[in-house]
Amino acid sequence: MWGIIATWTMSKEGIEKAEEILKMSGDSGDAIEKAIKEVEDFEYYKSVGYGGLPNEEGEVELDAGYMDGDTLQIGAIGAIRDFSNPITIARRLSKEKVNNVLVGEGAIQYAYQNGFQRKNMLTSRAKIHYHNRLKEMKELELKPYSGHDTVGMVCLDELHKVVAATSTSGLFMKKKGRIGDSPIVGSGFYADSQIGGATATGLGEDLMKGCISYEIVSLMEKGLSPQEACEEAVNQLDTKLKQRKGQSGDISVVAMNKKGEWGAASNIEGFSFVVANACHKPTVYIVKRKNGKCIHELASQEWLDEYMRKRMEPIYKK
Amino acid sequence: MWGIIATWTMSKEGIEKAEEILKMSGDSGDAIEKAIKEVEDFEYYKSVGYGGLPNEEGEVELDAGYMDGDTLQIGAIGAIRDFSNPITIARRLSKEKVNNVLVGEGAIQYAYQNGFQRKNMLTSRAKIHYHNRLKEMKELELKPYSGHDTVGMVCLDELHKVVAATSTSGLFMKKKGRIGDSPIVGSGFYADSQIGGATATGLGEDLMKGCISYEIVSLMEKGLSPQEACEEAVNQLDTKLKQRKGQSGDISVVAMNKKGEWGAASNIEGFSFVVANACHKPTVYIVKRKNGKCIHELASQEWLDEYMRKRMEPIYKK
Repeated sequence: MWGIIATWTMSKEGIEKAEEILKMSGDSGDAIEKAIKEVEDFEYYKSVGYGGLPNEEGEVELDAGYMDGDTLQIGAIGAIRDFSNPITIARRLSKEKVNNVLVGEGAIQYAYQNGFQRKNMLTSRAKIHYHNRLKEMKELELKPYSGHDTVGMVCLDELHKVVAATSTSGLFMKKKGRIGDSPIVGSGFYADSQIGGATATGLGEDLMKGCISYEIVSLMEKGLSPQEACEEAVNQLDTKLKQRKGQSGDISVVAMNKKGEWGAASNIEGFSFVVANACHKPTVYIVKRKNGKCIHELASQEWLDEYMRKRMEPIYKK
Repeated sequence: MWGIIATWTMSKEGIEKAEEILKMSGDSGDAIEKAIKEVEDFEYYKSVGYGGLPNEEGEVELDAGYMDGDTLQIGAIGAIRDFSNPITIARRLSKEKVNNVLVGEGAIQYAYQNGFQRKNMLTSRAKIHYHNRLKEMKELELKPYSGHDTVGMVCLDELHKVVAATSTSGLFMKKKGRIGDSPIVGSGFYADSQIGGATATGLGEDLMKGCISYEIVSLMEKGLSPQEACEEAVNQLDTKLKQRKGQSGDISVVAMNKKGEWGAASNIEGFSFVVANACHKPTVYIVKRKNGKCIHELASQEWLDEYMRKRMEPIYKK
């Protein structure tokens, strides 16, 4: 059995590419990297890679993480600028003996010295978003932060290797140097081939308070199904955050276990995810909450068209 | 009941300062910050703060983390340069709504704009260490990395607030921008006032593979004593790493629960820690492994004198 699950509808094209690799008995590391690169390269997804929205200084700073569930090796980069595929750098770092997590100028230097391609990741579309938000913030006292759709994936291959990976441009208008959960193992991603893997998207600052990806994998180790583990972890953390600090940020997660069974849960309405395995074509579902439980509703073609239309609609300077 | 526990003998003077605050019913956040600052400021401790050993480029890059177990708020900085007290910056960040984890130039900018004191953290003693290591590496093919004694503490106050915090200069001769487990919640530190807290020191790249601080707190939540939780977590991770990648780096941990009970464990010989609570003066113990169990041996005055002598002995350029 092989399988792959990913956060958000934007992963669909990537998952289709990964499927081609996985059904030919390819490696889960290769498949997940390919899939995430696809999302990073598409300029209309404004929360990942090229076209990602900038920090408050107008710079696109990117985070990515990768974990190999066989060796437990991790690679991650935080607050890197001007490289086209953060996930590829993170995966490469997972092969180093030490220095697996690099941030800021050091990450840039490593990527440069290892021949990764430089690219200005700020698009003119992202610049318009930035300009408009600055204006709105002045006029409407709008909060700077909104939109934090990290791409996160978990992938299992025929050789039973589970990997997990993430890539994001983080919070729109974040402070320079801010990292969220995405490059943080245990919070943004976790994988153990003997159990399964998990990944998260939402408000990084809250996700990391519960080490939610590690928690989901721990729950699966105890025998919970991926779906039970995802719901339990989301509900636990959501409840705890409301008790301790009065509110909870967005929490959405997906997981897959070593058998290729999968789960997805969220504390918001409208979280979508994409899943594929040997018996299941790449499919987009939307998570709906009913009586504290999460159900998965198939995304209609109409819904998918509208998703893409919204992302690609022209935007204008205000 | 109040209590505080810390990694390594170097914490002793800091723990004595914290005791003064805690026995007057002071705040655990104030006490832990005071204690860690003491270690950061002492130039003869070469793995934390002033006098910390530089990265491969000769720059001292520092990491610190802080977690408030009441609110679960986290603050952390990674790869920051030229500020005297990383722990104070990390604690301040824990009070922000978002942008709680800052790295590299962004962390420097935040600290500067918020009035934190700049200081060149590279001492002439650290420069001699750097020079000598470069020479040894050329002549003896010595590995660049050794010594990674992070200061990590867990503290409980009379109002039942548990906090955990860390500060380190990381691996000697690390790559620029490398962060280890110390600024990573769940790996380097974790605190939940309803359970307790834990913190780790050792090879960060391995500690984060098991989210070991979060794991210890989870085990205490299940009813294990801090000592049982520390041993279980260290043995689990040590075994797993040996199975999965053939070897395990140094893993040492300390923990304290909400009752002020404490534990410490390690997979190496010679890990020392300091503990104090309402019934127990600040005391240094050394962890010894016997038949898979960890016992705590009181450090003799002779041992303590030798510890300090070694750290303060003159060093010369090779």
